[in-house]
Amino acid sequence: MSDVVSEFNAYRSKMNDAILADNNKIIKRIFNLDTNAFAEGALDKKTKELLGLVASTVLRCDDCIKYHLESTHKEGLKKEEVVEALSIATLVGGTIIIPHLRRAYEYWDALEDQTTSES
Amino acid sequence: MSDVVSEFNAYRSKMNDAILADNNKIIKRIFNLDTNAFAEGALDKKTKELLGLVASTVLRCDDCIKYHLESTHKEGLKKEEVVEALSIATLVGGTIIIPHLRRAYEYWDALEDQTTSES
Amino acid sequence: MSDVVSEFNAYRSKMNDAILADNNKIIKRIFNLDTNAFAEGALDKKTKELLGLVASTVLRCDDCIKYHLESTHKEGLKKEEVVEALSIATLVGGTIIIPHLRRAYEYWDALEDQTTSES
Amino acid sequence: MSDVVSEFNAYRSKMNDAILADNNKIIKRIFNLDTNAFAEGALDKKTKELLGLVASTVLRCDDCIKYHLESTHKEGLKKEEVVEALSIATLVGGTIIIPHLRRAYEYWDALEDQTTSES
Amino acid sequence: MSDVVSEFNAYRSKMNDAILADNNKIIKRIFNLDTNAFAEGALDKKTKELLGLVASTVLRCDDCIKYHLESTHKEGLKKEEVVEALSIATLVGGTIIIPHLRRAYEYWDALEDQTTSES
Amino acid sequence: MSDVVSEFNAYRSKMNDAILADNNKIIKRIFNLDTNAFAEGALDKKTKELLGLVASTVLRCDDCIKYHLESTHKEGLKKEEVVEALSIATLVGGTIIIPHLRRAYEYWDALEDQTTSES
Repeated sequence: MSDVVSEFNAYRSKMNDAILADNNKIIKRIFNLDTNAFAEGALDKKTKELLGLVASTVLRCDDCIKYHLESTHKEGLKKEEVVEALSIATLVGGTIIIPHLRRAYEYWDALEDQTTSES
Repeated sequence: MSDVVSEFNAYRSKMNDAILADNNKIIKRIFNLDTNAFAEGALDKKTKELLGLVASTVLRCDDCIKYHLESTHKEGLKKEEVVEALSIATLVGGTIIIPHLRRAYEYWDALEDQTTSES
Repeated sequence: MSDVVSEFNAYRSKMNDAILADNNKIIKRIFNLDTNAFAEGALDKKTKELLGLVASTVLRCDDCIKYHLESTHKEGLKKEEVVEALSIATLVGGTIIIPHLRRAYEYWDALEDQTTSES
Repeated sequence: MSDVVSEFNAYRSKMNDAILADNNKIIKRIFNLDTNAFAEGALDKKTKELLGLVASTVLRCDDCIKYHLESTHKEGLKKEEVVEALSIATLVGGTIIIPHLRRAYEYWDALEDQTTSES
Repeated sequence: MSDVVSEFNAYRSKMNDAILADNNKIIKRIFNLDTNAFAEGALDKKTKELLGLVASTVLRCDDCIKYHLESTHKEGLKKEEVVEALSIATLVGGTIIIPHLRRAYEYWDALEDQTTSES
Repeated sequence: MSDVVSEFNAYRSKMNDAILADNNKIIKRIFNLDTNAFAEGALDKKTKELLGLVASTVLRCDDCIKYHLESTHKEGLKKEEVVEALSIATLVGGTIIIPHLRRAYEYWDALEDQTTSES
């Protein structure tokens, strides 16, 4: 797996485990809701992942963007679809989004490289 | 047409006209991009409107929420679909979103009332 | 009861009922967590209400500020204590907080008037 | 004086007085700094007022925008200059700024009307 | 002392000195207010530090979170109390807070390690 | 050239090229507007760069701050002028700005070092 992808996921897993082990009821339930909210419902999973990606982008949270890029990638969304979602986020959120866009493109490339090298 | 809906649209139209009449090139182009970004593309219009709604909601802009609720309503999205998008926005953006959710529900009802009374 | 206080609460109740009646599982659970998070725990209720007030203030959500002002008032916190919390919010969040401070002072006065007129 | 302008200023003055009468040291000093920061210095007052306007606009604070529109108007800045500052704010902050732009244009017109009717 | 803690503090001190040496009156006074605002008053220091921590968390400023974690740790607040404050911040600010929560947990552990190794 | 400056610019250029090569019409136009908005107009370039710097600072975008520091430096603005702009941003945006101020000072020093070593 690509280094940036595996490092991001390793840190994320390790610290999520530490947080959940701490047993704060509110935080545990919020983590739980997060899994539920993106499950298939009236809207399909692909749409929901794009909604999560756009929310993360306009709120300018790099780690959240990476997480949703990874989910959209797993769901089989094409780069063109993901980029259209990011273009809406950039328009609504302004040029202040651009540095996050640069990192999003870099991470998407890492996700694609990983798929290629795995196959 | 429902009062809140027609008042919102009348003020929006009047002031948008005033802004565009002022002829600032940057602002005019941004208004123009706004129309383009939500047109059918790799993603369909319904999905794009939901993306615009979620971006507006997590950034907590009531007028932008109203505008996108109206567009999703016109595109024929069902309340259940719109509410799922809003639920993702509330989870990602936190309880600070709830007052905007109250106003979004009220505006959606006004949009539905207007359709009923028009038919 | 003071008009501004009763109007705020009436609208809040009516729309919260409409939202909860809609039965979106994610939103219902978030509403539920909100009640839980401010219950007595390792920190007492007074401290938690002040934390909610400061979070609402730096995120500049007038309705959330009103809600937490009301809770701090019910918990018997003194104006001086509430104002110290607001002063920290103003310092951390900047002068952009000041318009919200004006509305917070006005609402606190309405809360105090209501208590006086009720007794 | 135009109604919207005088109402805004009357409420602002009344509540600022209430806040300052309350004697919280931190808040008083922040109010004081606010006066100082926009005084002539290495940068002239006009530039500083435009900086305050752009900061208020990207942070989407309507009352702060009104306040700085009034100051730029008093300093004799032309509408074209003010609109260029607002266009930068809209580009950097995104289309989420547009509803604030509508209200800014409306308030600027009220400021100009007031000048005309006073002369 | 733990590496992450000492590195954070060394950089913070060095650059704060550079800023203060620069003698901008407004910035110096804001730094000064920061010390004052968290001093014992109507609210005790522990409560104030928690308010600073929650404000920093919902505004998603990692360095500010680290600074207030360190202060709460020095004031003798227990992890359970700090985590309850963070849980309120996560609920109010949404899941967008979670990446900051991961880094907060990591920093708190570094603060505890440092205390252990010093004793 | 100073390492931090050249690294920032190299990454920025590389990723901007990748984004533009991707040919999303909305994103390309936003990039294009960015160049236009800061060109000489009713306001001169120096003022516009300061507006961009203040917008970037209150929105707390380190990369945007670096970019505008570099532009103000190239336009020949003096440190004292830049710092006055930053002081307004810190007052309006609050102490949450301070960590960004530390990195801004560090980057400005790097920009000055580079000029000295080049001459």
